[in-house]
Amino acid sequence: MSSRTLIRGGLVITASDEIHADVLIEDGRIAALAASGTPAAGAFTADRVIDATGKYVIPGGVDAHTHMELPFGGTFASDTFETGTRAAAWGGTTTIVDFAVQSVGHTLREGLDTWHAKAEGNCAIDYAFHMIVSDVNQETLKEMDLLVEEGITSFKQFMAYPGVFYSDDGQILRAMQRSAENGGLIMMHAENGIAIDVLVEQALARGETDPRYHGEVRKALLEAEATHRAIRLAQVAGAPLYVVHVSATEAVAELARARDEGLNVFGETCPQYLFLSTDNLAEPDFEGAKYVCSTPLRPREHQAALWKGLRTNDLQVVSTDHCPFCFVGQKELGRGDFSKIPNGLPGVENRMDLLHQAVVDGHISRRRWIEIACATPARMFGLYPKKGTIAPGADADVVVYDPSAEQVMSARTHHMNVDYSAYEGRRTTGRVETVLSRGVPVITDRAYTGRAGHGVFTPRATCQYLN
Amino acid sequence: MSSRTLIRGGLVITASDEIHADVLIEDGRIAALAASGTPAAGAFTADRVIDATGKYVIPGGVDAHTHMELPFGGTFASDTFETGTRAAAWGGTTTIVDFAVQSVGHTLREGLDTWHAKAEGNCAIDYAFHMIVSDVNQETLKEMDLLVEEGITSFKQFMAYPGVFYSDDGQILRAMQRSAENGGLIMMHAENGIAIDVLVEQALARGETDPRYHGEVRKALLEAEATHRAIRLAQVAGAPLYVVHVSATEAVAELARARDEGLNVFGETCPQYLFLSTDNLAEPDFEGAKYVCSTPLRPREHQAALWKGLRTNDLQVVSTDHCPFCFVGQKELGRGDFSKIPNGLPGVENRMDLLHQAVVDGHISRRRWIEIACATPARMFGLYPKKGTIAPGADADVVVYDPSAEQVMSARTHHMNVDYSAYEGRRTTGRVETVLSRGVPVITDRAYTGRAGHGVFTPRATCQYLN
Amino acid sequence: MSSRTLIRGGLVITASDEIHADVLIEDGRIAALAASGTPAAGAFTADRVIDATGKYVIPGGVDAHTHMELPFGGTFASDTFETGTRAAAWGGTTTIVDFAVQSVGHTLREGLDTWHAKAEGNCAIDYAFHMIVSDVNQETLKEMDLLVEEGITSFKQFMAYPGVFYSDDGQILRAMQRSAENGGLIMMHAENGIAIDVLVEQALARGETDPRYHGEVRKALLEAEATHRAIRLAQVAGAPLYVVHVSATEAVAELARARDEGLNVFGETCPQYLFLSTDNLAEPDFEGAKYVCSTPLRPREHQAALWKGLRTNDLQVVSTDHCPFCFVGQKELGRGDFSKIPNGLPGVENRMDLLHQAVVDGHISRRRWIEIACATPARMFGLYPKKGTIAPGADADVVVYDPSAEQVMSARTHHMNVDYSAYEGRRTTGRVETVLSRGVPVITDRAYTGRAGHGVFTPRATCQYLN
Amino acid sequence: MSSRTLIRGGLVITASDEIHADVLIEDGRIAALAASGTPAAGAFTADRVIDATGKYVIPGGVDAHTHMELPFGGTFASDTFETGTRAAAWGGTTTIVDFAVQSVGHTLREGLDTWHAKAEGNCAIDYAFHMIVSDVNQETLKEMDLLVEEGITSFKQFMAYPGVFYSDDGQILRAMQRSAENGGLIMMHAENGIAIDVLVEQALARGETDPRYHGEVRKALLEAEATHRAIRLAQVAGAPLYVVHVSATEAVAELARARDEGLNVFGETCPQYLFLSTDNLAEPDFEGAKYVCSTPLRPREHQAALWKGLRTNDLQVVSTDHCPFCFVGQKELGRGDFSKIPNGLPGVENRMDLLHQAVVDGHISRRRWIEIACATPARMFGLYPKKGTIAPGADADVVVYDPSAEQVMSARTHHMNVDYSAYEGRRTTGRVETVLSRGVPVITDRAYTGRAGHGVFTPRATCQYLN
Repeated sequence: MSSRTLIRGGLVITASDEIHADVLIEDGRIAALAASGTPAAGAFTADRVIDATGKYVIPGGVDAHTHMELPFGGTFASDTFETGTRAAAWGGTTTIVDFAVQSVGHTLREGLDTWHAKAEGNCAIDYAFHMIVSDVNQETLKEMDLLVEEGITSFKQFMAYPGVFYSDDGQILRAMQRSAENGGLIMMHAENGIAIDVLVEQALARGETDPRYHGEVRKALLEAEATHRAIRLAQVAGAPLYVVHVSATEAVAELARARDEGLNVFGETCPQYLFLSTDNLAEPDFEGAKYVCSTPLRPREHQAALWKGLRTNDLQVVSTDHCPFCFVGQKELGRGDFSKIPNGLPGVENRMDLLHQAVVDGHISRRRWIEIACATPARMFGLYPKKGTIAPGADADVVVYDPSAEQVMSARTHHMNVDYSAYEGRRTTGRVETVLSRGVPVITDRAYTGRAGHGVFTPRATCQYLN
Repeated sequence: MSSRTLIRGGLVITASDEIHADVLIEDGRIAALAASGTPAAGAFTADRVIDATGKYVIPGGVDAHTHMELPFGGTFASDTFETGTRAAAWGGTTTIVDFAVQSVGHTLREGLDTWHAKAEGNCAIDYAFHMIVSDVNQETLKEMDLLVEEGITSFKQFMAYPGVFYSDDGQILRAMQRSAENGGLIMMHAENGIAIDVLVEQALARGETDPRYHGEVRKALLEAEATHRAIRLAQVAGAPLYVVHVSATEAVAELARARDEGLNVFGETCPQYLFLSTDNLAEPDFEGAKYVCSTPLRPREHQAALWKGLRTNDLQVVSTDHCPFCFVGQKELGRGDFSKIPNGLPGVENRMDLLHQAVVDGHISRRRWIEIACATPARMFGLYPKKGTIAPGADADVVVYDPSAEQVMSARTHHMNVDYSAYEGRRTTGRVETVLSRGVPVITDRAYTGRAGHGVFTPRATCQYLN
Repeated sequence: MSSRTLIRGGLVITASDEIHADVLIEDGRIAALAASGTPAAGAFTADRVIDATGKYVIPGGVDAHTHMELPFGGTFASDTFETGTRAAAWGGTTTIVDFAVQSVGHTLREGLDTWHAKAEGNCAIDYAFHMIVSDVNQETLKEMDLLVEEGITSFKQFMAYPGVFYSDDGQILRAMQRSAENGGLIMMHAENGIAIDVLVEQALARGETDPRYHGEVRKALLEAEATHRAIRLAQVAGAPLYVVHVSATEAVAELARARDEGLNVFGETCPQYLFLSTDNLAEPDFEGAKYVCSTPLRPREHQAALWKGLRTNDLQVVSTDHCPFCFVGQKELGRGDFSKIPNGLPGVENRMDLLHQAVVDGHISRRRWIEIACATPARMFGLYPKKGTIAPGADADVVVYDPSAEQVMSARTHHMNVDYSAYEGRRTTGRVETVLSRGVPVITDRAYTGRAGHGVFTPRATCQYLN
Repeated sequence: MSSRTLIRGGLVITASDEIHADVLIEDGRIAALAASGTPAAGAFTADRVIDATGKYVIPGGVDAHTHMELPFGGTFASDTFETGTRAAAWGGTTTIVDFAVQSVGHTLREGLDTWHAKAEGNCAIDYAFHMIVSDVNQETLKEMDLLVEEGITSFKQFMAYPGVFYSDDGQILRAMQRSAENGGLIMMHAENGIAIDVLVEQALARGETDPRYHGEVRKALLEAEATHRAIRLAQVAGAPLYVVHVSATEAVAELARARDEGLNVFGETCPQYLFLSTDNLAEPDFEGAKYVCSTPLRPREHQAALWKGLRTNDLQVVSTDHCPFCFVGQKELGRGDFSKIPNGLPGVENRMDLLHQAVVDGHISRRRWIEIACATPARMFGLYPKKGTIAPGADADVVVYDPSAEQVMSARTHHMNVDYSAYEGRRTTGRVETVLSRGVPVITDRAYTGRAGHGVFTPRATCQYLN
């Protein structure tokens, strides 16, 4: 365990720096960095040396939004914690923050215990949990305090899915007030689900049952409305707010407005909103079902607003909302009724590569890539400085990334447990070569060398990204 | 020169990280960082060891806006490059970017040569130059290209001071177009000087001659107007824009609007706008003259907008606009006519401390302190990664800062060559202990150990802060 | 009935004109106007001549928001249709639009029949009804169509008062969709009642029971939030929207934003928000209860935003929301629990005078006075051209107004059936002299000459104010 | 002269009313209106009766922006006051406000005298003058006061055309300050002419000489910038502002923002911006020159913003900026150099018809048609209540308009003295039948019955449209 690993000669990229440095790892942590070629670097000794010449050395990705084994619409997300975290590692992600779920009528604790049981001993990389709060009451509010103390420091609520995950504005306000006191961060699924359900019912009554109607009824205006509402409730509560899976131009505008006012309001988007569109939802032969998720894919012109938001920091994080359902047998549950298609897309393996492609395409800089995919999610959710950076003292979650290798995304080659790729056939530049998790090689020269159970539950501090 | 210095046990703070690390310096550069207490850190050896236990170890400040020896209104700024850079070092600043001035009818080269002559051999710390362009013509435009190549990569224009530094909108547009091609960054003094001169004339005609009228005629709306105009001209030219010394709520709003649109528009403010106000301008017995600068101090309520802008990153940099004139003999030139008071305040020595006080007061975080005072000015003006951070490979411009020492600002104790302090009697928490410039001690345990001529001209790359 | 009345020599003021004209009334309608002193005017003959020299001749006021005999909180608004309409006439108002109420579980028709029964035969002036929709369902939606056909063309919904009048966003969306088809206009009480009820409960639990806490829990941000939400739901439905009793700066801003986008969104404010404030709510000895209404009175600084909104036409109508409860026996129900104070203020008699005072004070012009108090409410609610103007063919609802008479508002002299005046002791300039309703004198030289039952139900066309 | 004319049976449309009324004219003024079919109407007697059954009876149009005989670019606008006012009458316009021009180095008086000489005795309809101020100095400022007193109450300045009409920001501020005192209204040509001239020079240097480049160099952003600047200068001066010929989405946005702030800022657009686009400027064979005017035609998508602005009242007036130059011999001056094409389009005859077409097309309502084309220009420029309405006491400038007649616009049939129509071949619904000017028939059943010299100079009051 007192092993030393040395990564030599790469370009170390963090959210703030790009330096030619050798990285020394001791006992699973970054021990030191030295400028490559200097006497200081020359003095480093190690048991194992990884040559990163011509490669990037980057922090392992932090995917702050995954749903392994999530029960939804009568089925379960098809990746287990074992298959999902292994795929994450293949894609250069070394930490996921998944969601434990409180069912209505049950305690937070029950939900959390269930999810601990699902994950423990099964993960290839480190993991943490947010808590989905489906039933705010006096007991729940007290449990929130306890959970913050044991490292579950963020709580997701839904303005959508009435009857399932939905919280009304009073429940939201109470949870926000509590989080203002205990330091928790409220994460919001911001869609006006009450209004959307009316539109769903009307669409189905008109015989509009194909997947593309999923995109039409879940209107951008209703995402923006809920985003605005969540912001104002948070403002009343004096609490910060993190809006998940922002997809619409109008929603970005609400976030920008709130941030101009100086509010601690944050926004996450996902690769599917940046790279896919309603064109995919409209694919024939029910293929559109592969792209059904909520918030839904938007018309192509929304992508520019999302990229702009990422550049201007009105959006701070790109997570995946990884929640895969097989086309055969799962997505097919919604044939003839788009509202019965399980919501979710696979992506945990694709995120780092797609965002590197965005660097290649000029949407963002290299440092911003690391910031939105590693550093800010770590800070936002209290994993810093263990995760999200390469700095002395941090966990040695490190990826050696070949910026010039080419690959083609495909269900035939990916490692996620799902029978399709949302990016089938897409060529990208850049590829993960080697992945260390706390110094231990999980991927070694594009071979899986990890094991289920290496990854451990990681308690989190409260949000480190506030103004 | 192959000396090694080791700074042990401090909290290393950069724009992105706060780590307990030992910093090894070799040959004037940061060679390595190691987590304090680890074997890797223990392996560091050095000729000299600085114990930073309980202290901050921060990058030396980068003050991107100073005017040493500036000729203005028939007199000269009272700090020479020697006295001014020495005072800067006392205040924890290790790089200044001063302004070479093109006079109307002369070439850029002539101005630059003059300023090189002023600075060379006299500076205690490293320095660089922006170029003030007072006379845009075909020759000037060509010279801009040459200057960019030799490391003068930013050009300041004035929408104020007709007949002196003033450029009209056509000259501004041409310079912006050129900078869009050659990578230069246009810095703008954004005040509608044509309109202000009308108000000055009218005020004087009404007998309003006291210093406080300086603040009244240079209206916030006319700063905001010019800010907006500069933004739109830059948008037409396809060029980035850096607005200097932003002082007014309305101007911050224009910057925020432009940034929401995704434009590469940046704003700098200065300590005087954050800590002083028109209350100072109204001090009796002509004392208000001490606080005459342009843009002017604003009513106190503008400060909140500036702090908010710094938190939301609608303002990115805090520089000083250091341009001292003694009260006796210089400021007094404007008795009976506020328009004849030389414009400018001393501050190069106070900036890092005042901004640390802002940390203590809760306006900004520690990392943001370093970001706005060190890292972003370095990136903005192409000094990165030499300056503005503590990372392997960077210049060893390092400050050991005692965060709990208290001090009182005063002309009796400061090192700037000016007979008053704009912050006389102000108590602050935090103090510079030791300052290294490229590894060489300039301030050692609060004693000056530097020398004129240690500091060298530092050519700059083009802006590294663009979207 | 073929009587002719001639009003000679006044300044006829409408929303668009100020003309010196004689007004000829035949059979209850404006028959003709002629320029005073011309042969055409000289040719007018009449049974009765009213000399209006030095006076204004204005359309009778249209108060689009009254609640006579409203059941609320276990009691009833203290003005009956008889007392309330008589007081209205005293104040220069000749048409009210009151609200019939659907109770949950009952039909619209039942509610409407009840209100017809209350009003019929009792009114001194003409009246019409909006319909409060408390229970949107398939039956209700169909009834809305029928009501539009019989002249009930506007429907009020509440985002406040959960469990009483409250509609959820789905019910609102459905009603809006229906109104988009049948031409009805949705009127919205825009406050987030779900969130407010949480704050009410918490305030009471803290022992904050005085009337002033009514103002604190019903936050401006929660009015603005609901305003924004209603706007977006209307946008989704493709329907126009009329927001009642706008009281907060932030809510005006939401309306302005929507109108800048070209949406058919309208806003009403009331005299109490223009002339009163939280200072009144804080009056000692439970006197603050007199000023409890929802939306609540706001801090004084909100008034400027409301006046600005009235000038810029971001607010279009001033109604009273007249809903009086006696201090003794009614308001007192809320001693020890502000949430039990019946919500509402008297004002139907004061509106025209208070708005004339606004003319005197320079807030609005004379024509704007008539526009916001007579013409626009008439257009907005389909009463045009019968009501709201003085033009050939219009109903002869005419007020002779003395612009220079002075009066003092007081419960001792007013005609509303309530034991206090919200404007007790306030001096105003301007006074109603004579009021005609369809040519019949209701007030004659400041004596009541009307009768209960003169006023008739007035079916309304659909909104005539759309873009 | 004591003649009486009666217009029977039409639908009288004003900015605020649509009434079936008979209109009695005595001695050139509207004497009375009576509801058609009433005894009061039956009592009207007249020398001449015009049957308007099935027709509209509307106020004569007020075109607040024409340039008859304007010297420009070495030639003169091709319509004289005689031909131009005759064409105006044909098009249903009964008042024009033309522009007297101060040349640099001359007094306002000299310019005004020149224009009086051009117009006097030549006009078919009434006329008034704005004053173009090209040379603001102490003498000019004093003359402004005098002109206001003699009914020249508006002053136009140019932010474009350096060296010709251009005023700098100081001159603009001074004129605005003066107008804030004397009640004059500053009209602004808002384009950043200094920046535009740089782009013109660069375009020509690149060989871009065709008319379409006129549209490219006069960028929408530079119109918006100047609009914003003028607004802020007016705000500093405390003066109202009227921006002429608004053409760009971005400029409308600036006006909307200012009006949301409650400023007295007004905007005019013209039919060419509503109905034409850069598609016209790009017509081959130099035909694009016909459409060269400044501000320039914009891409088609700007039209929606203008219509929206007219509906939301962010734009208040539609004038023509009528300034015709023949294609042959005049427009041709700019072959090979777009900057030499005389700027201006014919339109004084087309405005009322094009705006009626906008009614037919659903862009605006009938009342809004009259408001933007008659009532508001009359109020804005102090012609009310003589002009712009049909009300007792007003001048009998009346148009009988057939709303269902069809016509085709063409140079072959129009009455303007110019060899092309900007709307050649365009079919419109609606046509002027009869036009009275102060009761005198100028057009009678589509025959010209007027005479040069009937129209008289009409002094104007100050702006009657302020908040």
